[in-house]
Amino acid sequence: MKKTAVILLSGGLDSTTCVAIAKDQGFDIIGLTINYGQKHIFELESAKSIARYFNIKNHSIINIDLASFGGSSLTSTNMKVPKNRRTADINDIPSTYVPARNTVFLSIALARAETINSFDIFIGVNALDYSGYPDCRPEFISEFEKLANLATKEGIEKKGQYKIHTPLINLKKSEIIQKGMELNVDYSITSSCYDPYENGNPCGSCDACELRLKGFKDAGKIDPLKYT
Amino acid sequence: MKKTAVILLSGGLDSTTCVAIAKDQGFDIIGLTINYGQKHIFELESAKSIARYFNIKNHSIINIDLASFGGSSLTSTNMKVPKNRRTADINDIPSTYVPARNTVFLSIALARAETINSFDIFIGVNALDYSGYPDCRPEFISEFEKLANLATKEGIEKKGQYKIHTPLINLKKSEIIQKGMELNVDYSITSSCYDPYENGNPCGSCDACELRLKGFKDAGKIDPLKYT
Repeated sequence: MKKTAVILLSGGLDSTTCVAIAKDQGFDIIGLTINYGQKHIFELESAKSIARYFNIKNHSIINIDLASFGGSSLTSTNMKVPKNRRTADINDIPSTYVPARNTVFLSIALARAETINSFDIFIGVNALDYSGYPDCRPEFISEFEKLANLATKEGIEKKGQYKIHTPLINLKKSEIIQKGMELNVDYSITSSCYDPYENGNPCGSCDACELRLKGFKDAGKIDPLKYT
Repeated sequence: MKKTAVILLSGGLDSTTCVAIAKDQGFDIIGLTINYGQKHIFELESAKSIARYFNIKNHSIINIDLASFGGSSLTSTNMKVPKNRRTADINDIPSTYVPARNTVFLSIALARAETINSFDIFIGVNALDYSGYPDCRPEFISEFEKLANLATKEGIEKKGQYKIHTPLINLKKSEIIQKGMELNVDYSITSSCYDPYENGNPCGSCDACELRLKGFKDAGKIDPLKYT
């Protein structure tokens, strides 16, 4: 019998590649997208397209209003998404950091996983070509895995079986794109931009766009998105 | 300057006592109530009353639909809340367990705390007179505290400062009630029942009611709620 995995699917390049990798590893996939009040709400449409593309039958979108807490340029209307930073330094965590976001996301994924007796959660975090968010680092992921095994009925009954899969964590963005292309990912339906135009087209100059564009360039590939 | 704490306020006896203790310790209080799809939605009204009673100016109710995942008699309409169990054994976690609930709750509290530069989170978990939920145990709490300090910008910048306060964790229910009464808690506005009547009155025979009733009895006090 195939194992089932819960995959956090944002609609971006990384989580989409994660889906392709999990499928390639033989997992049945439960998709989980979180509408947390991100201003770049367009990514939810991408997440739906990706779920269709990969024929994910079980894809849920869960709402949680982290925007009401403020504290991030991804959620607060009175904070602007920074542009043209071309930097990614852990000592300079940008305003796009959303307080405790991946802890919230993984805890919801854990709740989802436990209700369907799945012990496998995929998250497309990346600790090389990233914005220095603390909750993308290996030490955070490994700590959450420990927590999952203490926090749950299933974790206690089947000791230590929860696994947080992070297949991208040590890859460069260009390697992620190469891997995805080998697995026939259609990057034209993904959405990485933090501050897209109204029609969903990416801005080209936020951190997420810059990392993505550099990734395609380093991989010697063309990004299928239109940056206008 | 007073320190600010985020307190998870369910509307029940334990979290209300927690508020009184945190106030007594000199904290300014930010109240956080989670509407997770619990069938005993009446507790949200109690949480609001308690926030008013303690003059908590900043009290938010955050919605997250854990009910859509199912897997618990507290959220699923097709599962009945068990009655007259009179047992609390870690080897027999009851159907009222909500998968990963306290992990989700604490992660939301962490998000709230980080946005207001608070490092103090109170949760009224109790590992003596309880239903054997894994996410009420000291080892879970201590692991979450470690996670909080790795997961967040504030946790990294001000190393190890997050503290998950669990002032009730080693108290018997009767001791919690005695402590609350010393601090002038009005238990008539609290709501513990998992399966209340339509008017909000408690059933008297779910685990939560049984633990509460025994607590008042052992403390030699009268529960002000009407069990009819």
